[in-house]
Amino acid sequence: MANLELCVVGSVALDSVETVRGKRDEVLGGSASFICTAASFFVPRTRLVAIVGDDLPRGHLDYLASRGADMSGLEVVKGGRTFRWAGRYAPDFITRESLNTELGVFAGFQPRLPDSYRSADLLFLGNIDPVLQLDVLEQIRKPKLVALDTMNYWISRKPAELAKVLARVDAVLLNDEEARQLSGESNLQRAARVIHAMGPTIVVIKRGEHGALLVHPHGVFAAPAYPIDEVCDPTGAGDTFAGGFMGSLACAATIDDDSLRRAMIHGSSLASYCVEDFSLDRLRVLEQPDVERRFGEFRELMRF
Amino acid sequence: MANLELCVVGSVALDSVETVRGKRDEVLGGSASFICTAASFFVPRTRLVAIVGDDLPRGHLDYLASRGADMSGLEVVKGGRTFRWAGRYAPDFITRESLNTELGVFAGFQPRLPDSYRSADLLFLGNIDPVLQLDVLEQIRKPKLVALDTMNYWISRKPAELAKVLARVDAVLLNDEEARQLSGESNLQRAARVIHAMGPTIVVIKRGEHGALLVHPHGVFAAPAYPIDEVCDPTGAGDTFAGGFMGSLACAATIDDDSLRRAMIHGSSLASYCVEDFSLDRLRVLEQPDVERRFGEFRELMRF
Repeated sequence: MANLELCVVGSVALDSVETVRGKRDEVLGGSASFICTAASFFVPRTRLVAIVGDDLPRGHLDYLASRGADMSGLEVVKGGRTFRWAGRYAPDFITRESLNTELGVFAGFQPRLPDSYRSADLLFLGNIDPVLQLDVLEQIRKPKLVALDTMNYWISRKPAELAKVLARVDAVLLNDEEARQLSGESNLQRAARVIHAMGPTIVVIKRGEHGALLVHPHGVFAAPAYPIDEVCDPTGAGDTFAGGFMGSLACAATIDDDSLRRAMIHGSSLASYCVEDFSLDRLRVLEQPDVERRFGEFRELMRF
Repeated sequence: MANLELCVVGSVALDSVETVRGKRDEVLGGSASFICTAASFFVPRTRLVAIVGDDLPRGHLDYLASRGADMSGLEVVKGGRTFRWAGRYAPDFITRESLNTELGVFAGFQPRLPDSYRSADLLFLGNIDPVLQLDVLEQIRKPKLVALDTMNYWISRKPAELAKVLARVDAVLLNDEEARQLSGESNLQRAARVIHAMGPTIVVIKRGEHGALLVHPHGVFAAPAYPIDEVCDPTGAGDTFAGGFMGSLACAATIDDDSLRRAMIHGSSLASYCVEDFSLDRLRVLEQPDVERRFGEFRELMRF
């Protein structure tokens, strides 16, 4: 069976991260980097749409290409500075402090889809200005499924624009805090229903160490987080979940309750590996049998 | 198949509770009340060990008896005052403020097991002074399984005594905060292993709205919380979980990985109903088919 074509709009960044396990400076980060890497375990190619400066080490571009990222939609700005983020996690990994955010060329991001991208079947709109997300929707032809990520910043700053995008997407992936803020409901079950009424039929609420919840008209599915002995760095776990989720759907014969549930477990599996090392380090050395093994471990974890 | 005999040591109390859904004054509460009620969906009789004052309305005693509680181990102190607790929950139900705690006769609780209790197969040591828990252990003959609950107060005030009890029990049920405090580990997977090394082979970590985790030498099982639309009052949910868990085990042919997993889902099912109304109000009107239906709903919630 041919895979569906996956197109991802997001960020490619340089992250500086400090946790109780150590410190890394200017390592590869950004939502699109994690999403493409996770999706690469399911699909041979991801149509990448992002922007970087020419200060991004060549090795990072080579790495993304090695993961099947189609680089024709990656804008490299001459003399531009790549998006940089620095943060420090509390010892319990639950809270984090942003030490520095330099948008660089990301501030002027105007996503342009190459012609070859416009027929993609699955579109993932990473967490960017909803105005730009709408603009990308205008450029894509007739996708089978559009999924969206967003964050508290856009929920409070651009509610009207976000509402417009939400009305046009099939799926939304957000964390519990964002789901509560977007819906005005503290109960997640009710929050999902309010968000559902805004447009997306598929609502995925990511809860970090507490797993993830899928709510759609034909079912509710609760995936636990895989119990990890030693978390090293949670950066990118949510994006890795999204990449595994979208990649898994791209391999599915049909997008239905069963394939959505499997996609949730694939996303959770990849995310559980992601946090075991800094940046993309664990995913870089992860092999296909590891992904299948963790899928089986989830069956064992949830069997009764 | 004959049920195993279940003996429960705990509190019977009068609770005054305030949540965003309303307020109740001096309703039936206490760990043993919730445990006996939940267990009654699985076993015809629970050997109850508790203490109350003669101010406890007769109707509450009749209710417990109607739930199969063997009252011969219930001490009613003439002129004594029943344990009272008053608390107020935050609108998100996550934090609560204790407004009043009057131990009353509970302060002088010296659990005495009637002779007929000493041959019980399953013993649940509710959250009381570990010195008294040890004393109960001396009174029971040869139980197949002893489970223990405790709280932060005993973990910090009587660590040596608690260690002595832990070394002699098979299972411990505690919430995530208590597991972290007892083990000194913030990671729950590692916390469970540390607690395991203290004695209990079976460690159950209750995580409220995030479900519950079972860790024992032959497996790890993650049960989600059932997504409840409208929480009314979380008081007693953990004890209800414990009652469902113990009751389910009392019906099992053998206590093994499979029956422990089913017990986790039975505990979670009962707890999910408990929070839907104040005090024991939801459990009072709950029927056997409701319990079986929720068990099936958990299958659907976790199926992939």
